[in-house]
Amino acid sequence: MKKHNFSAGPCILPKEVFKKASEAILDFDNSGLSLLEISHRSPAFVDVMEEARSLALELLDLKDKGYKALFLQGGASTQFLMTAYNLLENKAAYLNTGTWSDKAIKEAKLFGEVIEVASSKEKNFNYIPKSYTIPKDTDYFHCTSNNTIFGTQMKSFPNTDKPLVCDMSSDIFSRKLNFSNFDLIYAGAQKNMGPAGVTLVIIKEEILGKVTRKIPSMLDYAVHISKDSMFNTPPVYAVYVSLLTLKWIKENGGIAGMEENNNRKATLLYAEVDRNPLFKGFAEKEDRSPMNATFNLTNSGHKEAFDKLWKDAGVNGLNGHRSVGGYRASMYNALPIESVQVVVNCMKELEHKI
Amino acid sequence: MKKHNFSAGPCILPKEVFKKASEAILDFDNSGLSLLEISHRSPAFVDVMEEARSLALELLDLKDKGYKALFLQGGASTQFLMTAYNLLENKAAYLNTGTWSDKAIKEAKLFGEVIEVASSKEKNFNYIPKSYTIPKDTDYFHCTSNNTIFGTQMKSFPNTDKPLVCDMSSDIFSRKLNFSNFDLIYAGAQKNMGPAGVTLVIIKEEILGKVTRKIPSMLDYAVHISKDSMFNTPPVYAVYVSLLTLKWIKENGGIAGMEENNNRKATLLYAEVDRNPLFKGFAEKEDRSPMNATFNLTNSGHKEAFDKLWKDAGVNGLNGHRSVGGYRASMYNALPIESVQVVVNCMKELEHKI
Repeated sequence: MKKHNFSAGPCILPKEVFKKASEAILDFDNSGLSLLEISHRSPAFVDVMEEARSLALELLDLKDKGYKALFLQGGASTQFLMTAYNLLENKAAYLNTGTWSDKAIKEAKLFGEVIEVASSKEKNFNYIPKSYTIPKDTDYFHCTSNNTIFGTQMKSFPNTDKPLVCDMSSDIFSRKLNFSNFDLIYAGAQKNMGPAGVTLVIIKEEILGKVTRKIPSMLDYAVHISKDSMFNTPPVYAVYVSLLTLKWIKENGGIAGMEENNNRKATLLYAEVDRNPLFKGFAEKEDRSPMNATFNLTNSGHKEAFDKLWKDAGVNGLNGHRSVGGYRASMYNALPIESVQVVVNCMKELEHKI
Repeated sequence: MKKHNFSAGPCILPKEVFKKASEAILDFDNSGLSLLEISHRSPAFVDVMEEARSLALELLDLKDKGYKALFLQGGASTQFLMTAYNLLENKAAYLNTGTWSDKAIKEAKLFGEVIEVASSKEKNFNYIPKSYTIPKDTDYFHCTSNNTIFGTQMKSFPNTDKPLVCDMSSDIFSRKLNFSNFDLIYAGAQKNMGPAGVTLVIIKEEILGKVTRKIPSMLDYAVHISKDSMFNTPPVYAVYVSLLTLKWIKENGGIAGMEENNNRKATLLYAEVDRNPLFKGFAEKEDRSPMNATFNLTNSGHKEAFDKLWKDAGVNGLNGHRSVGGYRASMYNALPIESVQVVVNCMKELEHKI
């Protein structure tokens, strides 16, 4: 039976990507060698890295605008400390929209003063705070564009003359934004971009070099930039699979094409959440994420029946995060709308059965 | 034509590993899902992580001896700073046996005083220094067990009551040692253990908690231990391929089996290096590494002829590192002795041709 994979991450990638990614393990590019056994300094892999870096900038419309793309290790969790290590001299402003913002704040506090400009914690992060001021004397402003756990997304970003730093782990390459408004974007690959084990960092070079502390080489963006993202052995396979996915995005209409599909999927699902009296959305409507739709049963007594319905239909990964409960449908770029229809059908069927 | 892969890393892994690793990309464990698209919190992957951690300790004979195994990101280069971040309060002693020791020393200096107890730099690291004293007031002693670039290997390790920290990136699981003499062992996977993108850390818990500085979560061994190596999304695929390789090691005689084969391969190659008047070994004989054999032509005028011979024979990755020049035959666990015989045949053929 076909599986419908709503996993929050690591998550579904395009079928074509899995096929090529599997072949490269046995024979990479007709070399007679596995991609796993070739030197990262071989021309074949250097080409992969350079194409991935270039394509990431191209898709974000950031070529020739002073940005560099890096493929690093350690996930967004490592970026929480790297951003502060590289940028926080005195004070930084953070918007707290959920678990991941909270973790970023915790790490930044080791390096300087952190101003939490606003937080939606008092309502279990079911909305995005909108009226806040970024203090004039901060080194940068940090936010999380999409909150995977709570199903909220920032629809707009503050106008500020401070460097704008954004964790886009769960919605990068999913919607059009004016990416040149940002100074540092980072994203763990394992949602819309690739497998776990690599992190994309997009950085405007001019924001570097402003802190006085000594930075260990592996944590220093300038070191990675100077070595073209090959300061040490990169996570070869994860970079390659990311390149395959970036190519698939380009071939399927780029970010605009992704956004159109994502909006269709989100409209389909949220319409049923709002229509069906057995369900209730978790996030405020205006802040709803097209990537992660969070919703609950209005009567938890129907849990067993609903769970059986979607599991029998081949749906995977629909359970909500423990911080929210209920359900979470993660609808990343590669998820086909047919899979969303399957969940919607299960919701309708539950209604008919009750 | 069959390829004979002598790449220094990333490098050859067992054929059986490539086969299973390729299948898991299309369908992991008959789940109907790719290994790349399942949650790292799924029972299937938690089992992979736990089995890999347990098997690493078992192969090193470190079970129930106070050690924990972690699979982290960032390579040995990240361990250079993590070891110092976690262990260096005042002063640490380092043995300098080559490029990687040198880099470890550089990063450690950001965190405290570093005593270089000995160095073989004056002879381009072609030997392992043996008479040195570890000062009484150091927090730990750090060394590199095998020097991939220079082809040297430590055959014995100092007796010290200080924590013994060792970078075993290029010879872990290749030879028997009394691993319980070590307090912290780390190794980038991409030689004998798996693909690039994951680092094995073996740590004796009792050495932690002795420094006063605050440690960022991702750099804190104690945090990773407390979360069973799942503090954040681990590099799922690289951990899985490492598990496949560890199982292959176990099925093929464990470390003792590996060592026996590695010694046969090294004996075969070094015998030819010593016998054939056209070649000369780079490293001092007593310090030669069975993993990486470095050697030069006695007359560099034969370079073109020799290069043609081995390339025509399907040999890959035999060029020496730029710091040494000449040739380097990396003979990791998975390299069959038949491949070594092919190189030896090329060396003999060169002699007959000249």
